Amino acid sequence: MALHIYGDSKSGNCLKVKWTAQHLGIPYVWTELDVLNADTRTPEFLAKNPVGQVPLVILNDGRPLAQSNAILLHLADDSALIPADAYDRARMLEWLFWEQYSHEPHIAVARFQMFYLGKPRADLDAKLYERGGTALKRMNDVLEGSTFLVGNTLTLADISLVAYTRVAHQGGFDLADYPAVAAWVARVEAALPITD
Amino acid sequence: MALHIYGDSKSGNCLKVKWTAQHLGIPYVWTELDVLNADTRTPEFLAKNPVGQVPLVILNDGRPLAQSNAILLHLADDSALIPADAYDRARMLEWLFWEQYSHEPHIAVARFQMFYLGKPRADLDAKLYERGGTALKRMNDVLEGSTFLVGNTLTLADISLVAYTRVAHQGGFDLADYPAVAAWVARVEAALPITD
Repeated sequence: MALHIYGDSKSGNCLKVKWTAQHLGIPYVWTELDVLNADTRTPEFLAKNPVGQVPLVILNDGRPLAQSNAILLHLADDSALIPADAYDRARMLEWLFWEQYSHEPHIAVARFQMFYLGKPRADLDAKLYERGGTALKRMNDVLEGSTFLVGNTLTLADISLVAYTRVAHQGGFDLADYPAVAAWVARVEAALPITD
Repeated sequence: MALHIYGDSKSGNCLKVKWTAQHLGIPYVWTELDVLNADTRTPEFLAKNPVGQVPLVILNDGRPLAQSNAILLHLADDSALIPADAYDRARMLEWLFWEQYSHEPHIAVARFQMFYLGKPRADLDAKLYERGGTALKRMNDVLEGSTFLVGNTLTLADISLVAYTRVAHQGGFDLADYPAVAAWVARVEAALPITD
């Protein structure tokens, strides 16, 4: 049985799982669910994931796993996407937790409301831009001196962070203000590669 | 040089680092910083952690590491707090990411505003209680059939989740509504042990 990914292609959290599987050559089946259509709230899906969220994967042995970054870490176990050095690995994990707490809730949320729900930027909470801007500034500071987020090698930190950063403009952020981030997005897209 | 933890004892994110070090017998030095006094915004501290957040640890070799759950994973590497089984380890990681996205932003934030800033519950965002309640309900459902969050052994998932769950009443949540959670809190406190 191949890896089964339940995802919504609008969601960077789902796409990062797909890109990781593709990059590692892991065969998978993708089932598209539309969050806006409440596809993740049907009794069938809630039986698979009581939290009612995508991405959800069903592993080869039939067992479920949720939380995008936990899925990435599981799929990439023992691969070059996870640094062998203990400190580099810890820094990668630091980025993964930071992404879910200090990046995604601002940048992904602004994008969802603007790009998918059609709200004008002026109607969105100003805190989204203040905090999203702080997140992009931090990435830019680091990437001015580094090819990837953890040294010179592509890791899960890059895959996780690129997911919403590459579409930040759809949320009203301008990556021209963060040139080192813009250059890094292009490098990560080329390295994976991301074709959609 | 011993592990150096910069933390605020009001913060469950900081205490979970301390408990993990204590449980594993890792010697450490604790420097107390008061977030309410902006101790994490001084030039000296920002030089250590540009994000201006605690917990921050300085490892034995002088290198810094932030993000509570990333620190836990680093300290507990190769210990019994991280399951050897790959799937159990993935489920533990799932809880760690869920904690930072779906538990802490509601329960810790409600507690901070009520207990430390002195705001009455009626003034807090109702979404904090809706989402915090959903998180506690999910934990209760799982813990009705399980001693700890991942099977029958204490893992980092328990240490991470207990940090704000055990003080949820200070944020206006009543653990009497979640009896399996209340019983689990007592088990985790006894297992670590937590004495403060």
